[in-house]
Amino acid sequence: MSQTLNQMIDSIVKALKERLFVEVEASGRHIHLSRKDIDFLFGDGYQLTPVKDLSQPGQYACAERVTITGPKGSLKNVVVLGPERKSSQVEVSLTDTLALGIKAPIRQSGDIKGSPQIVVSNGDKQLTLSEGLIVAKRHMHMTPEDAVKFNVSDGEVIKVKVFGTRPLIFDDLVVRVSKDFKTYIHIDYDEANACGFTKGTLGMIIK
Amino acid sequence: MSQTLNQMIDSIVKALKERLFVEVEASGRHIHLSRKDIDFLFGDGYQLTPVKDLSQPGQYACAERVTITGPKGSLKNVVVLGPERKSSQVEVSLTDTLALGIKAPIRQSGDIKGSPQIVVSNGDKQLTLSEGLIVAKRHMHMTPEDAVKFNVSDGEVIKVKVFGTRPLIFDDLVVRVSKDFKTYIHIDYDEANACGFTKGTLGMIIK
Repeated sequence: MSQTLNQMIDSIVKALKERLFVEVEASGRHIHLSRKDIDFLFGDGYQLTPVKDLSQPGQYACAERVTITGPKGSLKNVVVLGPERKSSQVEVSLTDTLALGIKAPIRQSGDIKGSPQIVVSNGDKQLTLSEGLIVAKRHMHMTPEDAVKFNVSDGEVIKVKVFGTRPLIFDDLVVRVSKDFKTYIHIDYDEANACGFTKGTLGMIIK
Repeated sequence: MSQTLNQMIDSIVKALKERLFVEVEASGRHIHLSRKDIDFLFGDGYQLTPVKDLSQPGQYACAERVTITGPKGSLKNVVVLGPERKSSQVEVSLTDTLALGIKAPIRQSGDIKGSPQIVVSNGDKQLTLSEGLIVAKRHMHMTPEDAVKFNVSDGEVIKVKVFGTRPLIFDDLVVRVSKDFKTYIHIDYDEANACGFTKGTLGMIIK
C-alpha cells in the first residue's frame, strides 16, 4: 500500500479507538480518612504525605498505611488515599470481605450510610468506624467532552466489553460525568482478575 | 387472573427458564492427584476419602488437604478432589497466584503442558510437581440432551449473562458436551466475586 493510504488507515484506526475505547484501571483496597480520624490515628494536625498522583485530578496515594480488622482477620498495609474526606471510608474487594469476616454492600464511593463498621489501626492507635466499609461498585469517570464524544450522560448505565485474556462484558456500569474527572473505567481487583486485566487494558462502550 | 391462567403462565415461565438458564457454580482452589503422588504424600496404596459429591458425576471432594507453596507464600488446606487422575494438577485463582508469587496460565482442566511447577506438601512429605499449576478457564458442562435444547455444540464458544448483584456477561465461555456431564457453568472465585455470585445464581446463554 502507498504511504499515504497507510497514514489514512492509521488515522482512521486512531479516531475509531478514541471514540470506542476507554482505559480500564483496577483499584486495590484503600481507605479515605476524615480530618478527625487522621488526628486520632496519626496525631493532631497531622498532614498526609502524597507519594503518587492517581488518574483522577487532585487524588493521590499517600505514604501512610493502616491496618483494618474484622471478626475473622486483618488486612495490613492498606494505603491511605488523599485528600482527606468528610467521612472516613474503606473500600475493599469481596475477597477481602471474606478475609475480614464482614459482609459489605456494593456501593458507589461516598454512599456509606448503613454500611458495616470496621476497625482501623495505626500501631497502637485503634478506632472503630461506626460505618464505612464498602465494596466499590464498578463505574466510569468521564469528562464532559468525552461524554459528548461517546454519547453518554451522567448517571447513565452502560455495558463495557473488556478485551483481556479472559474477555467479558461488565453490565450495569454507571457513568459519572464531571469537569473534575479524567476519563477512566474503574473496577476492583476481583473484577480485574476475572477479566485478565493488565495495565493498559481497554474497555469498549456498548449501549 | 383465573387459576388456570396463572398455572399456564407458571408453566411458560418454567419452560422458558429451562431453555434459557443454566446454574452457575464457583470452584475454589483445589488439587487433583495422580496415584504416584498420592503414594508419596499419603503413603503407598493410600485411598482418598470421599466426603462430598460434586455436581459432575463421579467427581468428589475428599477429606484430604494439602499445602501448596510458591516463592512468595503458601496456601494451606487445599482440598483434594477425586478420583485420582493420570497427572496431578493444581487449580487456583489469579488472586492465589499473587499470594504464591507464580504466574500461571488460564487453561482448561487437563491442559497442563508447560504450565509452572508447584510445591505440594502434606505434613513433612513434600514434592515438586514439574508442571501443573493453572488458573481454570471458565467453561460450561452440558449433557447432550441439554446441548440440543440450548442449541449449542461441544467446543462452541458462547457468552453467558449472569444475573447477580454485579451483573456481567462472560464472553469466551467454552461449552463441553458429554453424556458423563451434568449441565453447569463453572467459574472461579475471582469471577464469582466479580459477578456477585451466590448459590443458585443463574446464567443466560447468549450466542
